[in-house]
Amino acid sequence: MKIENDLLLRAARGEEVERTPVWLMRQAGRILPEYRAVRASLSGFKQLVETPEFACEVTLQPVDLLGVDAAIIFSDILVVPDAMGLPYKMLPGVGPAFDQTVKNASDVKRLRVADPGDLQYVTDAIRLAKKGLNGRVPLIGFAGAPWTIFCYMIEGGGSKTWSAARRMAVQNPALAHELLGMITESTIAYLKAQIEAGVDLVQIFDSWAGVLDGRTYEAFGLNYVRRICDAINEVPVTVFAKGAYPSLKSLGELNCRTIGVDWQMDPNWVRSLVGPEKTLQGNLDPAVLYADFETIKSETTEMLRRFGGRRHIANLGHGVYPDTHPDKVRCFIETVKEFKHS
Amino acid sequence: MKIENDLLLRAARGEEVERTPVWLMRQAGRILPEYRAVRASLSGFKQLVETPEFACEVTLQPVDLLGVDAAIIFSDILVVPDAMGLPYKMLPGVGPAFDQTVKNASDVKRLRVADPGDLQYVTDAIRLAKKGLNGRVPLIGFAGAPWTIFCYMIEGGGSKTWSAARRMAVQNPALAHELLGMITESTIAYLKAQIEAGVDLVQIFDSWAGVLDGRTYEAFGLNYVRRICDAINEVPVTVFAKGAYPSLKSLGELNCRTIGVDWQMDPNWVRSLVGPEKTLQGNLDPAVLYADFETIKSETTEMLRRFGGRRHIANLGHGVYPDTHPDKVRCFIETVKEFKHS
Repeated sequence: MKIENDLLLRAARGEEVERTPVWLMRQAGRILPEYRAVRASLSGFKQLVETPEFACEVTLQPVDLLGVDAAIIFSDILVVPDAMGLPYKMLPGVGPAFDQTVKNASDVKRLRVADPGDLQYVTDAIRLAKKGLNGRVPLIGFAGAPWTIFCYMIEGGGSKTWSAARRMAVQNPALAHELLGMITESTIAYLKAQIEAGVDLVQIFDSWAGVLDGRTYEAFGLNYVRRICDAINEVPVTVFAKGAYPSLKSLGELNCRTIGVDWQMDPNWVRSLVGPEKTLQGNLDPAVLYADFETIKSETTEMLRRFGGRRHIANLGHGVYPDTHPDKVRCFIETVKEFKHS
Repeated sequence: MKIENDLLLRAARGEEVERTPVWLMRQAGRILPEYRAVRASLSGFKQLVETPEFACEVTLQPVDLLGVDAAIIFSDILVVPDAMGLPYKMLPGVGPAFDQTVKNASDVKRLRVADPGDLQYVTDAIRLAKKGLNGRVPLIGFAGAPWTIFCYMIEGGGSKTWSAARRMAVQNPALAHELLGMITESTIAYLKAQIEAGVDLVQIFDSWAGVLDGRTYEAFGLNYVRRICDAINEVPVTVFAKGAYPSLKSLGELNCRTIGVDWQMDPNWVRSLVGPEKTLQGNLDPAVLYADFETIKSETTEMLRRFGGRRHIANLGHGVYPDTHPDKVRCFIETVKEFKHS
């Protein structure tokens, strides 16, 4: 089906666009009262993730209510370890919590490469969302990067330092690589199933890339992101490796179209390291959406100027904070849509 | 009193040294069974911080037991907000927790610029530690940087995003600057009291520098670190702004002797931005101390080579992790001591 507003896809492929496309990481979520209403009617976060009708509904909300140029399927990166045999709970006010963590070889042996059939609730939600979108804007699929998924599987929940995950990489690199390989295989199969179900672009989130130095990230992180990029040729791929300052040059050499840029990074500096062949996505500080409308407009305009209008997808530098007012989000989106590069 | 082993001070001032000096951030702490024994005999963390005899005892332990080239006074960066009128508790397994947080102008009005007299337990501990050291190695004093202290005062505890602190900077910059100014004034007075009591060098910890982009860190972070550096001329100053990638060039222009380098940063790249006039301190990945002895030796040697032997103080790139075996720490220290630059 032809997509009516394909600005995102054209920007990702480096083609000419009339204006910069815009969407927000975590746009399908708690910022919208309509999302909170759906969520409140359910027993928990996982019921929302695992019920295609509800996941589809909140996926479409930001397209209808905010006017973004893309939808992103509502899901969670932790569905992959879940399908590998390591179930998690989402604890309100705390975050994800795994019943068990991976400590040794026998723990890894008990896991399996995820069968996309076990993630049919996601592909079903994608099919419903594609139908609901009816070609208005592209639908983005996503997965966590292997290093980030590994972090959660070892730690069992959030961490400031991820020192347990880093300890396993140091103490038992062979086992770490075995697990990372299984996650990578699972992720490739999962992304291919998402594409088969209809997503028009996929994004890989390496949220904890920044806790490793460049050499270690190359070995335990980028190495596996590269395998995924090389395996996915059907749709454009975006890689968002948050905080991966030492690896920007290597990110520029990945077989992907777009590199995510967090809000701390200067766009010109990123461009100089990544090279001219990639589209950049980001990077307004999500905290700027706490400001008044005038400030949001001027900071968004400044951000657009810095990216220079070519090969740019406007977004925040991280997920939108849950307590952001939807009107502030709309102001950001409208400012991008109205901006003309001189 | 003349200091017998003054390698740290000479390296900080850029003078010739026979070998690279070495100490570890958080060396006075849970890695040592002798620390845990002292801690277990007390009612809590704050009793240890606030009792000069105990604080002195654990300050000296790593000099006696590990052979480091410097002691750092055992304390906590949060004693400053405590003395400003915002008390905190240290919750086991959780971290710091403030009873109240700063939300508005009247909350700021209730605070005061800290009187160093209210922190006499720290200066008393310093005097005892200087006596106990008896000139063997220098004693390091420290404080949190204003931005980092501000983060805790607004959030009331740890945070992954520090979005409440960043929200105040965005929504009420005048109030944020007022509070940052009060913290800065408190910190200068506090550091001067530490120097008066005998510390030979002071380090400023800006642990949450990395959550801001370069422009915002300049305005709300570096600006106040600069005031502190300009006010402290009695002893060498070290600034450790963790994750402040976009600001390395500006850090190089501070009126201080040493810049801390976290483990993710490449030493050559830091040197190219900071310039030749600063000593660099760091930056072994603390997770490397989970490895076997051979790996610790080779990674430490590689780290020393990267820094090139001049204007370098060996340390980790962050505080040592509490579950590190003391023998691994000793291996790191011995490797630095035995290394000869060719």
